[in-house]
Amino acid sequence: MSLPTIRLKAKADRRLRAGHLWIFSNEVDVKVTPFSNFEPGTQAVVESSTGKPLGVATINPNTLICGRLISRDIQYSLTKSFIVHKVNIALSLREQVFSKPFYRLVYGDSDGLPGLIVDRYGDYLVVQLSTAGMELAKGEIIAALEQALQPKGILFKNNGQSRALEGLLEYVEVVSGEVPDNLQLEENDVFFLAPAKHGQKTGWFYDHRMSRARLQNYAKGKRVLDVFSYVGGWGIQAAKAGASEVVCVDSSKSALEFVTANAELNGVKNTVEALCGDAFETLKQLKDNGERFDIVVVDPPAFIKRRKDLTNGELAYRRINELAIRLMEKDGILLSASCSMHLKRDVLVDILRQASRHLDRNLQIIEQGYQGPDHPVLPAIPETEYLKALFCRVTLI
Amino acid sequence: MSLPTIRLKAKADRRLRAGHLWIFSNEVDVKVTPFSNFEPGTQAVVESSTGKPLGVATINPNTLICGRLISRDIQYSLTKSFIVHKVNIALSLREQVFSKPFYRLVYGDSDGLPGLIVDRYGDYLVVQLSTAGMELAKGEIIAALEQALQPKGILFKNNGQSRALEGLLEYVEVVSGEVPDNLQLEENDVFFLAPAKHGQKTGWFYDHRMSRARLQNYAKGKRVLDVFSYVGGWGIQAAKAGASEVVCVDSSKSALEFVTANAELNGVKNTVEALCGDAFETLKQLKDNGERFDIVVVDPPAFIKRRKDLTNGELAYRRINELAIRLMEKDGILLSASCSMHLKRDVLVDILRQASRHLDRNLQIIEQGYQGPDHPVLPAIPETEYLKALFCRVTLI
Repeated sequence: MSLPTIRLKAKADRRLRAGHLWIFSNEVDVKVTPFSNFEPGTQAVVESSTGKPLGVATINPNTLICGRLISRDIQYSLTKSFIVHKVNIALSLREQVFSKPFYRLVYGDSDGLPGLIVDRYGDYLVVQLSTAGMELAKGEIIAALEQALQPKGILFKNNGQSRALEGLLEYVEVVSGEVPDNLQLEENDVFFLAPAKHGQKTGWFYDHRMSRARLQNYAKGKRVLDVFSYVGGWGIQAAKAGASEVVCVDSSKSALEFVTANAELNGVKNTVEALCGDAFETLKQLKDNGERFDIVVVDPPAFIKRRKDLTNGELAYRRINELAIRLMEKDGILLSASCSMHLKRDVLVDILRQASRHLDRNLQIIEQGYQGPDHPVLPAIPETEYLKALFCRVTLI
Repeated sequence: MSLPTIRLKAKADRRLRAGHLWIFSNEVDVKVTPFSNFEPGTQAVVESSTGKPLGVATINPNTLICGRLISRDIQYSLTKSFIVHKVNIALSLREQVFSKPFYRLVYGDSDGLPGLIVDRYGDYLVVQLSTAGMELAKGEIIAALEQALQPKGILFKNNGQSRALEGLLEYVEVVSGEVPDNLQLEENDVFFLAPAKHGQKTGWFYDHRMSRARLQNYAKGKRVLDVFSYVGGWGIQAAKAGASEVVCVDSSKSALEFVTANAELNGVKNTVEALCGDAFETLKQLKDNGERFDIVVVDPPAFIKRRKDLTNGELAYRRINELAIRLMEKDGILLSASCSMHLKRDVLVDILRQASRHLDRNLQIIEQGYQGPDHPVLPAIPETEYLKALFCRVTLI
């Protein structure tokens, strides 16, 4: 195997040596190794300005992040057997922590496979490729997943917005075996049906699993509001844990059909109500109707997708959390979540401080939730950490 | 009831309005209300520079933090019935979350009682008073705790270093009923005996409860090293969860006697070994002896007590974690904790990044632990949050 070489500028090796996996386009010595040498997605040996090999990366000459380190040993590249090896390392962690085969199996950079996401739904795998490097290796990826897991089917759900940055087209395609439209999964001993082909991301959000398990401890006998419920991840689990009543709010009618189906699947049809509407409007309406809840879950989609959304996004988090607090009984639990990587945890804490002070309520953070062990964080890449779930007790002053 | 008044300077009310409870001595308008008016610990109505009442605080004219807000309503002060009210609010949270009466019942500022810590060991309460205000109200505190909880005994464990700052003497005294030297408790279904009168702090550290519960999920069949074990909080729980072997390391012989007693109490005497020695030295020795562990818990005392310890303290965290990683099998779990309030979570993460890179290991943070719900965080007072527990998977590159 002979890979081309890409040469970094002086000192541009520092980030990689510190544990990071990305190379930015302005760090490449294009006089020595011009980008015109590389087709998007090709692999190359990365070397320092003095010619020292640092590892193997996939290269996309057209993007800001032009290189992603696959291996620190130049004898390995993105072959089928290398991917099998990495998948098995990832699998052994999941199998150690989870008793059933429902989890994020591969979480990109954090599992040493930048640009590759694999979510496992028992016998089915849903895959997202977000870099040209992974797109070019898709044959090897399919073969590797087949060998490592013998799935009944693999779905490529390649319709993420980030693909455009890499010059990749969007597509959704069954690439191995057969995959039903809706997939079954189990989380914290609760059963769900999720829309793989037509749902959000891979169909389900495994990342909040541990916080949802913790919320079950608070749910018994409580009236729960699940805002931005999607297919009912929080709400159905609260119902199963003994909530007296659960109202799931979402703007998507099809998501709410899954809420109803999932309530039925778990024998809590009579406690779960699905309410279709814009979250902000619906919360105002509930307030006007004099409704009150013991527990309110606010788990919105990322209000801050890019850094430039910061100001408006923070305001949106402030507004939705204030609306939630207004709906709360005099001693209640607010579960306030954010999946915006750009919203730092301490900023969300401060937003909750502002909201509670504005409403003259006392707010204590009693638990803090993170993405689960199937979404490991790589210390050198802060971007691998994005999920926050704050359990707040809200009382009258 | 007629309390004296303490007047703030212009704009010095901002922090209180933002939700904070502390007044710094340079914020008081001493021309209007000189400190000589106040005996340490007396209560006063706090008013803004324009004379608007902001609440009631305990005052210590001799300390940097000269005021601590007790109530935002000036009709309430630190009376027995007020303390009963606050204790009941705190109690209702603990009773909601914990099925057994073993927890921190009152966590100072976070439970609206600045300067008061109450740990509950079933029928016994261990109390720490850290401000002149609480010391002066000790009669009311005892009466309130007796009324709210009817304990068999209350121990004042007033020997914290922070008392000197408030001009308070250190003492340990049974102030109500009788209290045995050693107290029994239950955490995550594991039984412990802790040295209340002669141990660290109140005798036990309830704050890591949830992380210890999570560690149990990883322990089965594993060889575990518990560094800075104290009486065995992590180690005994790992043994009870099925660890094949547990080695507890502590420099205190008496703490290790409790480790042995606690192992016996839980029927894991044969799997738990107590090793007396300096942590750094002992880890080096274990390495020299070729010992290896699947799980290493590093939960040191605060290496950074004051801001000026930061550089040396960070170095100590780096060193002890590196020593721990050196002892690990090729795929192991490092539980790295810190109770230093001055060590930010992201700095600890970076220390682990440095340590793992230096040893050429791959480190993934798979779970993150926080202080439990009996140590609530007040968003306006970042100092109420101090505990970190990082679950790291360490593998070969």
